[in-house]
Amino acid sequence: MSVNARNNAEIAQNVPSQAMGALINSQVYDLLKPLPEGAEVQYFSLDDPEAAQLFRHSLAHVLAQAMQHLHAGQDIQFGIGPVIENGFYYDFGLPEPLKPEDLPVLEARMQQIVQQNLPFQRFEVSRGQAKEKLAAQRFKLELLDGLPEDAVISLYQQGDFLDLCRGPHLPSTGLIPPHFKLTHVSGAYWKGDSSRPMLQRVYGVAFRSQAELEHHLWQQEEAKKRDHRKLGQQLELFMVSEEVGQGLILWQPKGAMVRLLIEEFSRKAHLMNGYDWVISPHIGRAQLWETSGHLDFYRDSMYAPMDIDGEAYYAKPMNCPFHIEIYKNKKRSYRELPLRYAEFGTVYRYELSGALHGLTRVRGFTQDDAHIFCTIEQAEAEIAKALEFSLFVLRSFGLSDFTAYLSTRPIDAVGEAKDWELATESLRKALQQAGLPHDIDEGGGAFYGPKIDLKVKDALGRQWQLSTIQFDFNLSERFDLEYIAEDGQAKRPFMVHRALFGSMERFFGVLLEHYAGEFPLWLAPVQAKIIPIADRHIEHAQKLANQLKANQYRAEVDLRGERMQAKIRDAELQKIPLVLVVGDREQQENQVSVRERGVKEQQVLSVEALLEKLKAASVDRMLFQSDF
Amino acid sequence: MSVNARNNAEIAQNVPSQAMGALINSQVYDLLKPLPEGAEVQYFSLDDPEAAQLFRHSLAHVLAQAMQHLHAGQDIQFGIGPVIENGFYYDFGLPEPLKPEDLPVLEARMQQIVQQNLPFQRFEVSRGQAKEKLAAQRFKLELLDGLPEDAVISLYQQGDFLDLCRGPHLPSTGLIPPHFKLTHVSGAYWKGDSSRPMLQRVYGVAFRSQAELEHHLWQQEEAKKRDHRKLGQQLELFMVSEEVGQGLILWQPKGAMVRLLIEEFSRKAHLMNGYDWVISPHIGRAQLWETSGHLDFYRDSMYAPMDIDGEAYYAKPMNCPFHIEIYKNKKRSYRELPLRYAEFGTVYRYELSGALHGLTRVRGFTQDDAHIFCTIEQAEAEIAKALEFSLFVLRSFGLSDFTAYLSTRPIDAVGEAKDWELATESLRKALQQAGLPHDIDEGGGAFYGPKIDLKVKDALGRQWQLSTIQFDFNLSERFDLEYIAEDGQAKRPFMVHRALFGSMERFFGVLLEHYAGEFPLWLAPVQAKIIPIADRHIEHAQKLANQLKANQYRAEVDLRGERMQAKIRDAELQKIPLVLVVGDREQQENQVSVRERGVKEQQVLSVEALLEKLKAASVDRMLFQSDF
Repeated sequence: MSVNARNNAEIAQNVPSQAMGALINSQVYDLLKPLPEGAEVQYFSLDDPEAAQLFRHSLAHVLAQAMQHLHAGQDIQFGIGPVIENGFYYDFGLPEPLKPEDLPVLEARMQQIVQQNLPFQRFEVSRGQAKEKLAAQRFKLELLDGLPEDAVISLYQQGDFLDLCRGPHLPSTGLIPPHFKLTHVSGAYWKGDSSRPMLQRVYGVAFRSQAELEHHLWQQEEAKKRDHRKLGQQLELFMVSEEVGQGLILWQPKGAMVRLLIEEFSRKAHLMNGYDWVISPHIGRAQLWETSGHLDFYRDSMYAPMDIDGEAYYAKPMNCPFHIEIYKNKKRSYRELPLRYAEFGTVYRYELSGALHGLTRVRGFTQDDAHIFCTIEQAEAEIAKALEFSLFVLRSFGLSDFTAYLSTRPIDAVGEAKDWELATESLRKALQQAGLPHDIDEGGGAFYGPKIDLKVKDALGRQWQLSTIQFDFNLSERFDLEYIAEDGQAKRPFMVHRALFGSMERFFGVLLEHYAGEFPLWLAPVQAKIIPIADRHIEHAQKLANQLKANQYRAEVDLRGERMQAKIRDAELQKIPLVLVVGDREQQENQVSVRERGVKEQQVLSVEALLEKLKAASVDRMLFQSDF
Repeated sequence: MSVNARNNAEIAQNVPSQAMGALINSQVYDLLKPLPEGAEVQYFSLDDPEAAQLFRHSLAHVLAQAMQHLHAGQDIQFGIGPVIENGFYYDFGLPEPLKPEDLPVLEARMQQIVQQNLPFQRFEVSRGQAKEKLAAQRFKLELLDGLPEDAVISLYQQGDFLDLCRGPHLPSTGLIPPHFKLTHVSGAYWKGDSSRPMLQRVYGVAFRSQAELEHHLWQQEEAKKRDHRKLGQQLELFMVSEEVGQGLILWQPKGAMVRLLIEEFSRKAHLMNGYDWVISPHIGRAQLWETSGHLDFYRDSMYAPMDIDGEAYYAKPMNCPFHIEIYKNKKRSYRELPLRYAEFGTVYRYELSGALHGLTRVRGFTQDDAHIFCTIEQAEAEIAKALEFSLFVLRSFGLSDFTAYLSTRPIDAVGEAKDWELATESLRKALQQAGLPHDIDEGGGAFYGPKIDLKVKDALGRQWQLSTIQFDFNLSERFDLEYIAEDGQAKRPFMVHRALFGSMERFFGVLLEHYAGEFPLWLAPVQAKIIPIADRHIEHAQKLANQLKANQYRAEVDLRGERMQAKIRDAELQKIPLVLVVGDREQQENQVSVRERGVKEQQVLSVEALLEKLKAASVDRMLFQSDF
């Protein structure tokens, strides 16, 4: 439903009865505010995703109103109440701290306000009028003072609650889907400034349906259990040490084992897919980063230089300049192209210490980085191949729900328009060819080239941005890359960056939560725990372990003096895929009793069958699961 | 032949007729100088290795004498003429530059002087007398001025050549084995100071036998051909870029492939041998390096710090503190020990830019580093295992001639004497058990613990120091390492550092020269080059290449428009082990004509037989060649 707005009278007539708001140039408007004249208007109903912004924002006001009711006669100072992912919050200055048991009371009051179906009203007022209306609200007055001279000042009111607000809101509280929940309270400085007063921030989530709300709450609960920081510690996978420094990951043996398996898989897949492996150092001269432009545009994310013989060297924030230097080592011919250089390149980037988070936000991380140098004519096939390869690699980790984002030329961009067009077209075609749903972010590309970002849904349905495929018209120019074309002329190759996992650290964190620590047999750091029933079975258990290890499988014997049941429970807590119990019969028949993780029935297998089972879960078998 | 020197008269009587010099406290004396009273004297003859120092030093004087003869009547200024590895040199200030054709003339003159059998004479003189004798030699006068007040000043003379010299020399020129050669001339600043005059340095090599001389000359010639810097460039294995910085290696695809194969072999061998893999970052806080003592004792080899949030971080020169932090992540029990943490850890160390050399002297390199934490009781078995493992790994690269050096407690050492004894004993026993010839360097250990160094002879007979196994009583103390012993008491574990290759860069350089670039089939970056005879065989050639690649073998098709013979020659120049020619018959019969590197006869193999041949040269097969 799309109309051309000419004047408000006309709009009012044309507004469909189900409409809750309007979309103009990707911006959400409510129906309480005059729409800009002549704009292309698209109305949306409660069923459309854009409605979430409205009902979540309205809920923030309803929360504030409920707070006002429950503190009637007391001094409440209202801060801000914006929409956030999945919900909203509101900041309050209150006479005393909120307790967890206050939340259900607030929530009940909010439900009442929704049931009352109070209309939202919008007033455009003068600065003087606004100051008068909000005279008791010092934060609101401060916000008012911060508005530019010519700002349109609007107030929104539902029932007895009035707020300084730009909108947008639903027409009335009764339209708010009643599927919301207040989740927690935390402290928040006014304006995020630790020298200003500490307010109490009440968080809520809200969805269009009860099912969505419940799914979200389950997801949150489950995510807490799967928190990779918790699992990492519990399963002894990785650690951070205060002595070494924040955001610098130390991979303990079990975590390193999983990472090595992921790397082995990835490296072999790259080599089979026409990539060349390279290895580059972790530091480079200032001159290199000047040529690349990193010191101009990326310095804030780079560490301070270290001095070597009076010259500044920087820890690398990216691998590109090194791969470029390898490309430039000799004159390249069109016959050599495409060249695809891949590396697990460990880079170091500055993050604020407050932003650091487990494996997903760190100061040093290893990219599965590659750069493709190709002719213009090869670009389309190369992009299609890279995208297909990315999907193959991610599918091998049980990730199969993808959404792609194609970002196109921004206003300020380097490179020629026809190259941008060609490159963007090759990205678009690759997405179509792969049958991937994708959004287009017009003008959202980096200044150096268009790109595809791939988001992947994990087992909890959460989206993670992993793979990226980006053209770069900037570095190829800055480093003056060339190849000799068939006609003998020197030409500029196209250059493509791509990372599939993104970073090993972040991907490992995502996988850890995706699998809830239950790595599949081919990735498990310990594949089999062998439990001898009595002491007389120890020798046999160890022989079995040695047999498995000699075949490069990963087995451990539990030699502790615990009871068998306790050992089985411990192996389960360690999320080991196979628990092998060895007693008299197993010893005599050269068998094992196998308890497979997640399988109720116990199975008796010959040692040969066990070896076959493990072989079927090898990196090499994973590589041949799909025929890419 | 050992006597106690009491006075010179007695010595003279006791000197055996074959004696050329004497060894007192590991120091070489000649027979022309009074021996210290009461010392333990060990005479040696020309057949003993100590004699080399004498005849090489005497040859330096003979060279100077020859130079004096050939420039009779001209102004020659003599610099210094010391013994160096395999030979000697002498620095001269000459009226004009030497030409290569001057060397044979000088050499002939030297042979004459040897045949003249001129006795060496030694004079102890006053400073005044020396100045008078050497009045025309300004460098000698400067050397004289540099001698301490109470120095014994001695002159040596043979025939008409007199030199300021401490000795030692042979009794006469006739005793010099005539197996020497002048090799080259280079410029050398007086006293190595670029502000002083440039002299001409004439180099010579000298041996006891003609066979040794010829072997050395062959080795030098062959080494030049095998120079890893030359081969590295020619075979496109690795490179250095001025932009990235000196001493920082970029591994090109073919070199990276070999390195990855070496790493895969090593990592799998480690895992099968009871090591745990870990991965640690490349930077760490100053505090860590303070605790470890590196900032106190090793700062000169570390790069300048980089600042992160006002704290100094250093690029790691060693991996130990990181492995220690992983050990310290939880309370350890005796049940967990031994713990063996291994990593390919890339470290950054300062080297003077003038000292940098290809892959063997670099500023960033990757150690195959491991740390073993064990109880005192386990130390002996652990060392034996580590040594055996080291020999297995090195033998897999065709290195089989080992010499070991055991370095024991120096005077200044940390750690308790009984621990040193125990540790040293375990090293000694391991060497005996392995049947390795070894020298003992009494008191030559590091201050933190005794160690074994392993030198390995390459295909040219040159020795390289590769593996090292070292106890460390210092870091275990500084980091206060503990484990809970069976009796519930906290005890200090023994800690052992060990690296088998040393560094991946240096080992790769050694291997490259050892193999003369002809990597064996299992390590070759390209195992097979496929050459289609005519265009109609291209499709079949590519199918074959894909079949090999799908089995993870490394094959390339030569698609250039060159003649077949030229393609075969190029594949040979690239030192590719297998050249597979595909023509009509091969295509019909699904066969290949195989030219194996170094094998004269061509062979016709079925594709199945070819795959078998390649399978036999896999990393996994290498791992099972020896039953360790």
